[in-house]
Amino acid sequence: MKPLLDAIRRNPLLWLLVFVPALFVGKMLEPEAQTLLFVLSVLAIVPLAGLLSYATESVAAKTGDTVGGLLNATLGNLTELVIALAALQAGQYTLVKASIAGAIVTNTLFLLGASFLLGGLKHHVQEYNRVGARFQAGLLFLATIAILIPSAVPEADSGAGASFTNTLSVGLSVLLIVAYGLGLVFSLKTHREFFGGAEHAEAGEAPWPIGLALATLAGVTVLVALVSEVFVESVQKAAEAFGMTPAFVGFIVVALVGGAAEMATAFSGARKNRLDLSVGIALGSASQIALFVAPVLVLCSYVLGPTPMNLQFWPGAVAMMLLATVTATFVTNSGRSAWFVGVLVLMVYLVFAMTLYLLPPKVQ
Amino acid sequence: MKPLLDAIRRNPLLWLLVFVPALFVGKMLEPEAQTLLFVLSVLAIVPLAGLLSYATESVAAKTGDTVGGLLNATLGNLTELVIALAALQAGQYTLVKASIAGAIVTNTLFLLGASFLLGGLKHHVQEYNRVGARFQAGLLFLATIAILIPSAVPEADSGAGASFTNTLSVGLSVLLIVAYGLGLVFSLKTHREFFGGAEHAEAGEAPWPIGLALATLAGVTVLVALVSEVFVESVQKAAEAFGMTPAFVGFIVVALVGGAAEMATAFSGARKNRLDLSVGIALGSASQIALFVAPVLVLCSYVLGPTPMNLQFWPGAVAMMLLATVTATFVTNSGRSAWFVGVLVLMVYLVFAMTLYLLPPKVQ
Amino acid sequence: MKPLLDAIRRNPLLWLLVFVPALFVGKMLEPEAQTLLFVLSVLAIVPLAGLLSYATESVAAKTGDTVGGLLNATLGNLTELVIALAALQAGQYTLVKASIAGAIVTNTLFLLGASFLLGGLKHHVQEYNRVGARFQAGLLFLATIAILIPSAVPEADSGAGASFTNTLSVGLSVLLIVAYGLGLVFSLKTHREFFGGAEHAEAGEAPWPIGLALATLAGVTVLVALVSEVFVESVQKAAEAFGMTPAFVGFIVVALVGGAAEMATAFSGARKNRLDLSVGIALGSASQIALFVAPVLVLCSYVLGPTPMNLQFWPGAVAMMLLATVTATFVTNSGRSAWFVGVLVLMVYLVFAMTLYLLPPKVQ
Repeated sequence: MKPLLDAIRRNPLLWLLVFVPALFVGKMLEPEAQTLLFVLSVLAIVPLAGLLSYATESVAAKTGDTVGGLLNATLGNLTELVIALAALQAGQYTLVKASIAGAIVTNTLFLLGASFLLGGLKHHVQEYNRVGARFQAGLLFLATIAILIPSAVPEADSGAGASFTNTLSVGLSVLLIVAYGLGLVFSLKTHREFFGGAEHAEAGEAPWPIGLALATLAGVTVLVALVSEVFVESVQKAAEAFGMTPAFVGFIVVALVGGAAEMATAFSGARKNRLDLSVGIALGSASQIALFVAPVLVLCSYVLGPTPMNLQFWPGAVAMMLLATVTATFVTNSGRSAWFVGVLVLMVYLVFAMTLYLLPPKVQ
Repeated sequence: MKPLLDAIRRNPLLWLLVFVPALFVGKMLEPEAQTLLFVLSVLAIVPLAGLLSYATESVAAKTGDTVGGLLNATLGNLTELVIALAALQAGQYTLVKASIAGAIVTNTLFLLGASFLLGGLKHHVQEYNRVGARFQAGLLFLATIAILIPSAVPEADSGAGASFTNTLSVGLSVLLIVAYGLGLVFSLKTHREFFGGAEHAEAGEAPWPIGLALATLAGVTVLVALVSEVFVESVQKAAEAFGMTPAFVGFIVVALVGGAAEMATAFSGARKNRLDLSVGIALGSASQIALFVAPVLVLCSYVLGPTPMNLQFWPGAVAMMLLATVTATFVTNSGRSAWFVGVLVLMVYLVFAMTLYLLPPKVQ
Repeated sequence: MKPLLDAIRRNPLLWLLVFVPALFVGKMLEPEAQTLLFVLSVLAIVPLAGLLSYATESVAAKTGDTVGGLLNATLGNLTELVIALAALQAGQYTLVKASIAGAIVTNTLFLLGASFLLGGLKHHVQEYNRVGARFQAGLLFLATIAILIPSAVPEADSGAGASFTNTLSVGLSVLLIVAYGLGLVFSLKTHREFFGGAEHAEAGEAPWPIGLALATLAGVTVLVALVSEVFVESVQKAAEAFGMTPAFVGFIVVALVGGAAEMATAFSGARKNRLDLSVGIALGSASQIALFVAPVLVLCSYVLGPTPMNLQFWPGAVAMMLLATVTATFVTNSGRSAWFVGVLVLMVYLVFAMTLYLLPPKVQ
């Protein structure tokens, strides 16, 4: 337990853990205070996500490079996956899809842009491994195409289209997971020498003992699941109370909450001129959500959800995912960065966030 | 006055100044001869735009690099701005938007493509500073996204959408102006060493004395405003008389007229193997119109226009701006050019021009 | 005749020539057995296409570099052209367009991706001439824009739009052919030194004598025309029998059949680490179909077809052509390849193929 307590003492983000019990107490005493429960659940998820990602990396560090890379690649977005599974079980497919699209867009634009900006304010010009960036951008590009195509085919919207879209979504999900798996073989095994710069490990901290790490992984996952349930229940009402559209909440708020821990790591990497780390987290997380989390959710919906979920997104979300991917591909093409590159990328994110914030609430 | 008369004697383009008084005489004698007035106003704008851009550069040259760069960056497309303001006041929003979109497309495709072609016919392979091109392409890309998003969100077309689109357009306009300002800080101040090649100055001619330059700037702006008013009034009827669609006039004719002076500079730069100058004018003008002129017009419409103007464009115009930006990004990626690159870019322009020329006149 | 018989003895693909007489016998005995005739015609086209491309290259080799390059560039996709002409005469414009779009997509994705994969499984990293790839990608990009624009202009769908679309298509076709011709001047004449790596010739085989080559060219073209007629007649019924949608047949089956011979050459080039050859065939064929075969078909439709054919494609096909072009541009940008690049490109192809396979049959 000592390394866990040490970590909590050192990292102020983890002090937010106090909101986990606060949430459960609140849920018992005031089960109808949706806005309060929403705020508490947001505050509780942030430190849990941090613990989860630290425990994953500790397990990964102990199990050797290949297995570790595999663990990081599958559990790295466990928080997002658990939140989305809670929404899936509640049948809130709009929220699930908004949070998938939002996580992709937030990682490729906000996380990447803010890293470039924060790094660029300290360092005149920064360089990073463009092979890794190109690889992740390629994966993202494939996923975007797989998500775009069902919307680009007008037949999908007709009456006969529902079963077509569902069958196609299952097929595309399988393709994406296969591509993701082959991508791991490529980057962790056959061509690992090209991806040297992009490891996920936090510098300067010793990994936890394996027992503690595994126990934390299990325990925190359960806690995240419980908190997510309250979060999903309360988000709709809370959004109304705050005057936010559901699209804005799913796209922006959930994505920022779920990714808070990773952002801390990416930003500190950028300040330390380790931009490989930041770019790796930004694009790696986005492609992991697009090629692993999203297809797994589609397949899980056949077991867990009330009806099958498909990969057909709201046209605005498709456009945003596509533009985010193109932006990331464009700016990482040169392997160099300065502060204004970060401004450009963040501006694209602001364009999206502003559109979603102002959107009339009737969006499906 | 002597340098002004010298400039007129040396530059045959300025001999067209004789059409300025001719236009005013024509307007008094034959106020209904719309086609004649249209032709005279086109012939009058071309030399005025030339004088305006020369006066701006003279003031810029006297005021030092940073202030000068700033002046060039804000007044460089003064002609386009004044024409658009005249159309704005007349409530002709379709013409305003067509001329914005047209100026972006004409600068990125016609000006760039013709520079590559003219330079390439004389020089086997030409090289230029790709950092500058990437920077301008990035700005253009951001502006295209800001213009694309209101159209990609289907809610914008519904009944409740009008106020949404207007509010969003104001927000996006502010974002674009901020991005443009930060871009100036980046290229003129913090990272100016990367942008060495792209100054605007015409080689071999001494700048005018500051007094003459300022007086010319003020006087010619007033003349452009007066001529623009006649131009905007007569363009509709004249287009009918020539069998041209309004879309074609706004997109192609206005853009070619407003940019004639800059084209002369860019083409002569390309022939002298100074392709940095040509690429800088082409992409710099386009991004200036997209990130400065267009947002300023949206904001001005709240003061000057009969109703607010928004950033929602006709879908065909959005597609053309997006494709022009992608084309420019693609061809400037390598920092090298040969004559066929110019042919390719001009062909894309011809595809657009032909489409607009043939379009049935009911386009909104 | 001896070299012809030698070629047949050496190349097992040519043994399929036995299906040419089999088809004609079948057609006489069982004129209603559409499925059988379809299978026989497919099996007969494959070796004929192989002979055709070999004869073309033999003539090209005898006539010197420039004329030879020209011949290869115009007759290289003779099979696809003859099949499409047969469908054109039968008034089956949906099949013509599907086979054009399919040939572009299959060449840029399947042929390119499979070459990268097959080459990458044998060689760790492969390099190729990126100038050639960029050139072909630029041509393809222009063609995609020319095909996209009629669909992006909503007026084209209105009542008055039909004649607009037809006139525009003729104009665009002329532009594309001019661009293609200028591209040949550029790559075969003024800047040929940049395109060294991409010749079409199969290494190690002597070209045929010119008389035999010309006779084969003429004779086989007639045979392909005859076989194509049966193919076009039977394809609809056969597709139903196999449970395939017409879109899938036109897009995937026809394209794979017509390109079988080129695929054999491209794949063997990739295995021998001559990736320039493979990339040249993949992108060269695609741009040839887009900028030469498709416009020629549009112009021919005024002479041969029952009504004029235009360049307006089904939106899904436009999206696929555009995404295929963007994918090819993205992956050939670096001039390097490894097996996973092939996987990525093939996955995009699989996404398209799966979508077309599952599409409800009511597609226009």
